[in-house]
Parts: sequence; structure tokens; C-alpha cells
Amino acid sequence: MSTRTRIAFLKGHGTENDFVIIPDPENTTDLPPAAVAALCDRRAGIGGDGLLHVVRSAAHPEARHMAPEAEWFMDYRNGDGSIAEMCGNGVRVFARYLQHAGYVTEGDLAVATRGGVKSVHIDKAGDITVGMGRALLPEGDVTVSVGERSWPARNVNMGNPHAVAFVDDLAHAGDLYSPPPFSPAATYPDGVNVEFVVDRGPGHVALRVHERGAGETRSCGTGACAVAVATARRDGADPAVTGAPATYTVDVPGGTLVITERPDGEIEMTGPAVLVAEGEIDAEWLERSVR
Amino acid sequence: MSTRTRIAFLKGHGTENDFVIIPDPENTTDLPPAAVAALCDRRAGIGGDGLLHVVRSAAHPEARHMAPEAEWFMDYRNGDGSIAEMCGNGVRVFARYLQHAGYVTEGDLAVATRGGVKSVHIDKAGDITVGMGRALLPEGDVTVSVGERSWPARNVNMGNPHAVAFVDDLAHAGDLYSPPPFSPAATYPDGVNVEFVVDRGPGHVALRVHERGAGETRSCGTGACAVAVATARRDGADPAVTGAPATYTVDVPGGTLVITERPDGEIEMTGPAVLVAEGEIDAEWLERSVR
Repeated sequence: MSTRTRIAFLKGHGTENDFVIIPDPENTTDLPPAAVAALCDRRAGIGGDGLLHVVRSAAHPEARHMAPEAEWFMDYRNGDGSIAEMCGNGVRVFARYLQHAGYVTEGDLAVATRGGVKSVHIDKAGDITVGMGRALLPEGDVTVSVGERSWPARNVNMGNPHAVAFVDDLAHAGDLYSPPPFSPAATYPDGVNVEFVVDRGPGHVALRVHERGAGETRSCGTGACAVAVATARRDGADPAVTGAPATYTVDVPGGTLVITERPDGEIEMTGPAVLVAEGEIDAEWLERSVR
Repeated sequence: MSTRTRIAFLKGHGTENDFVIIPDPENTTDLPPAAVAALCDRRAGIGGDGLLHVVRSAAHPEARHMAPEAEWFMDYRNGDGSIAEMCGNGVRVFARYLQHAGYVTEGDLAVATRGGVKSVHIDKAGDITVGMGRALLPEGDVTVSVGERSWPARNVNMGNPHAVAFVDDLAHAGDLYSPPPFSPAATYPDGVNVEFVVDRGPGHVALRVHERGAGETRSCGTGACAVAVATARRDGADPAVTGAPATYTVDVPGGTLVITERPDGEIEMTGPAVLVAEGEIDAEWLERSVR
């Protein structure tokens, strides 16, 4: 690759939700869906659940209006090249990159996303907190099942739909290759993310998740938030009523997140964000992959 | 990572059998199994089916005796950190790296491996050929099955065992999550790699493979060789008898290989080898991962 054009990249993850990071402050790198899919391909490319295109808000037509509030825009793409509004683990890794590159330091930070401007905090210990919005808890009984077993589930909407089931043993969720059946069918006309939860101790739970369209994953930011809220209600805690924040430690397969629901309903997710490697991609390879 | 120690790496693949490459000519980088597993982890690390540690034969105790014949030693590791003798797709990617780094040019090359010295040829078009040794074809009928269907299979040993079944449709192999059952059980006491094969045209087949212990993979070098030999015998071609080489184009899910069986029994595998990216790993991250 020594004599060819190169594209800078990094690879990083938050609780093993992993990303290819393409720093491109002035938005000069063309990233059509096929290029994103080639980069995120785990065997033929770099590999990642998604891609974080790091662009100054002022340099991107979709983010220019947010530039006065948030200098940086997370142009987030799914691994298949499609556009996504937001990704909670992605925002944490995005913030870690900005810190690594020297663009920001510890403390508060606003990040522009297609889902609006997100509040981020980088703490001294290295963990990163992101505001995940509010949960809706639609009424109505839901049941999810795996094989012969079935459980009542709590319907939690974090902008995307979740069904949270408390179980005795996470192994009862089985291999999670296929979406766990749920009823009534009308509750989730477009399918649902299903979380299976066990208690680990006071204020401490563990989950496994089937992400809609993706199968079992190592981490799901909105899923961890949905689980914390469902657990708080099960435990009789509602910050809007008590005026006290509810905080849960949520173990996901890829690590540990801490979720706090504030009295105003805002949910904050705190966890690690790790940069593993950085380097350069052969631009000719990428062009060949896209053709 | 700017102020920390870094470890150079590349990522590459041969027909989507992919590798983390660690150039280390003087063998100064400590790579215990846990470090290899961390680097090959697809979400928490770089990601790869295996790791190619590139060392001068003279600098490695396991390869010093091969140094007069082969300057470079492929210290190959499986993705879980365990040691492996050889990997045909890995040797091609290893040779591509040596060419990229300017250590070798087009033409013939000898590569030291734990399976002995391998003959490699880098052609002008960019494809790389590696000598894969000879096939043994033990007598005896074998049957493999998927669900309700079953097929007769050819028993081919390429140093590792294969069962090659000709089918009407590759979709009949199903999802290949689990090892396809075979009989008689005594044929493969340690399990078997199973290839399902369809004809694509004269001298041209396509396969899907269940690799023992790994599930369905995008490519399997010894599997492609086993398939070429089984197809030649099915077609009535035996180079040892006719004195003419038998050549088959073998489509694997991750690309295309060309396999030639010579009259002396030696099997040569030719195919692409691609370097996708290169960069540096944060050595502190790797140390934390190993602890």
C-alpha cells in the first residue's frame, strides 16, 4: 500500500458493539453504502457492527443546522451500508475518538446525530456517558417464548421497541438464532428486540438480547436502558414519582453498562469505549470492492 | 495511542479466509495464546480466522533448521490462540505480505511452516500458488446427511479428513450450524470436514463446507483440494495414471480457487490474496486484554 492512496481508519468498541471509525473532518471522503458494507465486512474488510464517519457538523448538509450547538456530527451507518439515526454505544466510541485525536478533553460534549444533539460526558476514569432520551411504557400484557418456555414481558419503547422478560436462567433463552415468538402479535407489528434478564444482586442485573434483524448481539444500548427501566418498575422504583434517580448496573455479554433514570425521565448510559487499532486502508482495494 | 507503544499489524484475506498479520522479523514480539485470541476477536479486537506471525526462520527456535531453505517462517496461530501446522490460504496471504513489504518479488518462494517448507509462486497477474501436498483416498463407502436427505460421500485425506458429497443444490446442505451426521462412525473417529459440491460447467464446481469445530466457513483450502481430487476421480481422471495434470476451478463462498493435481500427486492451489489495511495496535490495550 506504500505507493497508493490511503484512507485513515480506527477500530473500536463499546461493550463489544464494534465500529470502523473514519475520521473525515471536512467531509471529503465518499462513503457510498457499498463502501461502508465492504469496510464492515468481517472477513473481506475490516469488520464492524457499524461505521462512524466523523465529520464537522458545519461540513455536512444533514448536520449544518446543529453546528452552533455541536461541533461534531456522527454520520452513523449500519454494517450493511444503510443509514441509522443513532447508536448509543457508537456515540461513546465516537467521543473516545474525539478525545484521542485531541479535539476534545474530559468533561461535557455535545454530539450531533440524525436523532438530534446528544449530551455526552467523558469522566476522569475513562468511562463515557451518553443521554439516551426517555422510555415509554405502553400498557398491555405481552408474552415471549423460547421453545416450550414462555414468560410475561414488559413492553418498553426507547424509540425502538423492546420486550423485557425476567427469567431464572439466561441459558433458557436458548441459542437466540431466531426471533423469540411473542403475543399478542399486534403489540409489535414490525417485530421487537427481546431482552432476557436475571438478577445478579441489589441494583445489578444481567441480560441477553435478540436484536431485531441481527440475532443475538454482544451489547444493545437501548436494550440495556429498557431493562433498567423495566427492572426499576418491577422493584417499585419510579424516579418521576420518588424524585430520586434509579441506577442499575447491567451486565451485557460484551461488558458492563450503568444506566441511570433521572426524575425528569432522561436516561443516561455510562460505560467503556475502547480504541483498539488505527491505520490506513488501501483506497484502491475499497474502489475495487465497490465496483 | 499517540504516546504509547504500538505494534504493527495488517489485515488480509484469501477467498475470505482472513488473518491478522503481525510483522516481526526478529521475533521480538511476545504473542501468548491470550494475546492472539484478543487480536482475532472480531468485536473486542481486530478480528480474523487466524494470525500470521511473520518471523525470519533464523530468529525462531521452531524454524531455525529450515532457514537454509526458507528465509521466512509462518508462525501460524488459530483464532483461539492455539498452534496450527499449516494453512493454505494463510500461506498465500503470508506471501502477499512479504511482497508488499519488499522482502520478495514475483516468482518462486519457499516458506517455512510447522508442516515443513512450502513451495509458493507469486504470478504476474497477482494470484499466488501454494503446494498443498498429496491426497489419500481411503477405500470404503461413506454417507453424509442433512435433515431427511443423505448422499454417498468420497473420503479424502489432505492431512486432515474430508467427506465430499455431490449434491443437486447447495441449498440442500441447510444452514450448516451443526456437523452433518455421517456413517459409518468409525470412518472419522475425530469428526470430519464435509464438503457439498455442485457442477458449474466443465472442470468447474462450487462448494459449501462445514469445517470441523468451526461450522460453515467462507473458504477451506484443504477442502477445495479434496473436492478437486474427488471430482477428478468421479470424472474418471487420475493424473498418476494418465500422466496429465487435472485442473479444476472451485468456487468457494468467499471467492474462487484453481486446484491442479499433478501426475506426481502434488496438489497446487492458486488464488487471490488481498491486504486490506495496515496500521498499529495499542500495546497497552493488548496487555490489558491478556491480563
